[in-house]
Amino acid sequence: MQQIEQDQQKEQEITQNEMPDLIINPYEVVNNSKKQIDYDKLIQSFGCQRIEQSHIERIQTLTQKPVHHYLRRGIFFSHRDLNQVLDAYEAGKGFYLYTGRGPSGDSMHVGHLMPFIFTKYLQEAFDVPVVIELSDDEKFFHKSETTLEEYQRYGYENAKDIIACGFDVNKTFIFLSSKYAGHMYHNICKFQHAITYSQLRGIFGLNESDNCGKVAYPAVQAAPSLSSSFKHIFGKDEVMCLVPQGIDQDPYFRMTRDVCYKLKVPKTGCIHSQFLPGLHGFGTKMGTTDPTSAIFLTDTPKQIEEKIKKHAMSGGGMTKKEHQEKGADLTVDVPYHYLRFFLEDDARLEEIRVQYGKGVMMTSEVKKELITVLTKIVTEHQQRRALVTDEMVEKFMELRPLSNYPPKKNN
Amino acid sequence: MQQIEQDQQKEQEITQNEMPDLIINPYEVVNNSKKQIDYDKLIQSFGCQRIEQSHIERIQTLTQKPVHHYLRRGIFFSHRDLNQVLDAYEAGKGFYLYTGRGPSGDSMHVGHLMPFIFTKYLQEAFDVPVVIELSDDEKFFHKSETTLEEYQRYGYENAKDIIACGFDVNKTFIFLSSKYAGHMYHNICKFQHAITYSQLRGIFGLNESDNCGKVAYPAVQAAPSLSSSFKHIFGKDEVMCLVPQGIDQDPYFRMTRDVCYKLKVPKTGCIHSQFLPGLHGFGTKMGTTDPTSAIFLTDTPKQIEEKIKKHAMSGGGMTKKEHQEKGADLTVDVPYHYLRFFLEDDARLEEIRVQYGKGVMMTSEVKKELITVLTKIVTEHQQRRALVTDEMVEKFMELRPLSNYPPKKNN
Repeated sequence: MQQIEQDQQKEQEITQNEMPDLIINPYEVVNNSKKQIDYDKLIQSFGCQRIEQSHIERIQTLTQKPVHHYLRRGIFFSHRDLNQVLDAYEAGKGFYLYTGRGPSGDSMHVGHLMPFIFTKYLQEAFDVPVVIELSDDEKFFHKSETTLEEYQRYGYENAKDIIACGFDVNKTFIFLSSKYAGHMYHNICKFQHAITYSQLRGIFGLNESDNCGKVAYPAVQAAPSLSSSFKHIFGKDEVMCLVPQGIDQDPYFRMTRDVCYKLKVPKTGCIHSQFLPGLHGFGTKMGTTDPTSAIFLTDTPKQIEEKIKKHAMSGGGMTKKEHQEKGADLTVDVPYHYLRFFLEDDARLEEIRVQYGKGVMMTSEVKKELITVLTKIVTEHQQRRALVTDEMVEKFMELRPLSNYPPKKNN
Repeated sequence: MQQIEQDQQKEQEITQNEMPDLIINPYEVVNNSKKQIDYDKLIQSFGCQRIEQSHIERIQTLTQKPVHHYLRRGIFFSHRDLNQVLDAYEAGKGFYLYTGRGPSGDSMHVGHLMPFIFTKYLQEAFDVPVVIELSDDEKFFHKSETTLEEYQRYGYENAKDIIACGFDVNKTFIFLSSKYAGHMYHNICKFQHAITYSQLRGIFGLNESDNCGKVAYPAVQAAPSLSSSFKHIFGKDEVMCLVPQGIDQDPYFRMTRDVCYKLKVPKTGCIHSQFLPGLHGFGTKMGTTDPTSAIFLTDTPKQIEEKIKKHAMSGGGMTKKEHQEKGADLTVDVPYHYLRFFLEDDARLEEIRVQYGKGVMMTSEVKKELITVLTKIVTEHQQRRALVTDEMVEKFMELRPLSNYPPKKNN
């Protein structure tokens, strides 16, 4: 573990020295540059790998389906051991997807949907099991605004939004970590045993006045990376795990992977997404304390329209003349960036990039396009969510085998 | 919590200043004085209360049974909130007993039996439920000599020795903490949330190179103190808990009680025992590394006889003449001290104390008496243990109501 600790310290140093405007960890993302994060530099400093065109082509070949625009556009841009996961799939051993959410009582915003939209695509493309952790215990330890029971309730409510993303109940297991922890406690113990307090402090920046739950919890997030945490799905099989996640969660899985090595089990695969900026611009936060900072899944079409028109940071010129002369600065333009995330049509996006960038297309037109796209996404989400019953949530949370494991043999 | 922390530091200081020869915590008991520990001073420094004659009389009145010689002789000598527990019992609300053991592959020795012998007496006297935690996770975090699975196996084996003490299966629930943790994880979270790392370090003396399990675990030992950790026994009732324990475990329950106060639930009651010394004398350890240091539950009558004859530290005179003149020094004499623990007959013990103390009775006679007593205890234990099947262990570990809860109303 000495070596692992040194490696982690080294990574930490690089981040701090070379990217002084940036703080990225599971508890905090601060981008003081006011521009899009330099994700190439981030890859270097985190020590992960860029997703190359060859990965995208391999995924297309293996799945025989068009790859998601999050991959095509580099929104999911980085990985760890993606090839090993694809190797396992190709060899017929399959893999499973693990993602999650720290439940909160606040409305979820469109940025929160990203990992679930992408996980659902991967589930459909590869036809593999999905497990989703609602980390109510983590929120209780880190936020402490209310009781554990209330975070459990938030978890159930958030599960409805996740289910509304269209997951197949026969292929998806959703769990509250406070309720499920017992089933994976043997693995939680192994992770807690394998990591020292000083290593954890190095990774997560804890201090001594933090509560003990913050020290205990990382193992709870790590445990679902081992298939032996889901005996009702995988029995005694050792199955590879791929974790779609925001890059801010990477420290958890760097730690997880170090321990996997020690436990002599396959290292967890990771696939990382970029951050969706707040409406007010790159480096701004989304949150309910400022409702104009984000599009929430509960917003009305009128609210969406108003927020984007009034609050979405534009990279366009200050005057029509200036705009036509210089074009829009797409590196700071929020509406264009949101279209990268939410407009599926590649040709149209490219047209906007070129025309808006040249100053031919106006900000108001781009915003109008974004309003149409997001209104459709949010409205349809609301319609699907309204149909999600408590019984459906219970069904997703029931301990049972999933229909797509073991994988069918391709003869 | 500031105040709690200060209190704990204060207690720690008293221990260190006034009892320099003594280290007592859950991980280590060192008595460099080579004499019996000054338990009065220990009560002062730990801030607990002496068990008075009035407690003993109250227990006798309430239970209408002779009190155990461990109480009569002050072997269980100290408590926290014993009166509150007895009040609850008297009011017909009942209480439950919680004790435990860190399972190990080593043979258990007669000292390990003490809390179970005493808990069984309390169970019979008060007719209350008993829960027993086998903390395989604790051993895994602290000993790390083998795998968690092996500590689980030790737990099952140790459960057989505990069952052989004569617990009533209808009134006793035994659990491995690694298997049961999920059922009390909500309470584990609440304890982890309520304690900071620096407080825990203050209580248990952890250092930064310790693994995270050592930080997470104290909450696992605390959680069974809340009746809401046993819904299959207590449903939604809030029932008081009394923990018979070696005084070395007190730091766990000081911490537990501080958190109970914060959680607004009744503070856990405690009742503390003295330590049984090693055969080689006060301040010596019992352990399998030196088989002559203790009487093990697997010893043959011949081994018991030999160990006591050859290795039990005597306080008698060096010569017969000296012994007859000065008598035995009972403050360092192991055979007499063992008889305090294991000889039930008060009149005979008093006779030995007087005659041996005066030098009328010889060490060889006292040892012979002890050999008879311990051979009977160990042999009968072995006979009962041989009858404990795997099925019986499973039955004790099954989640079920217990027959003596809720308590019968005395009409």
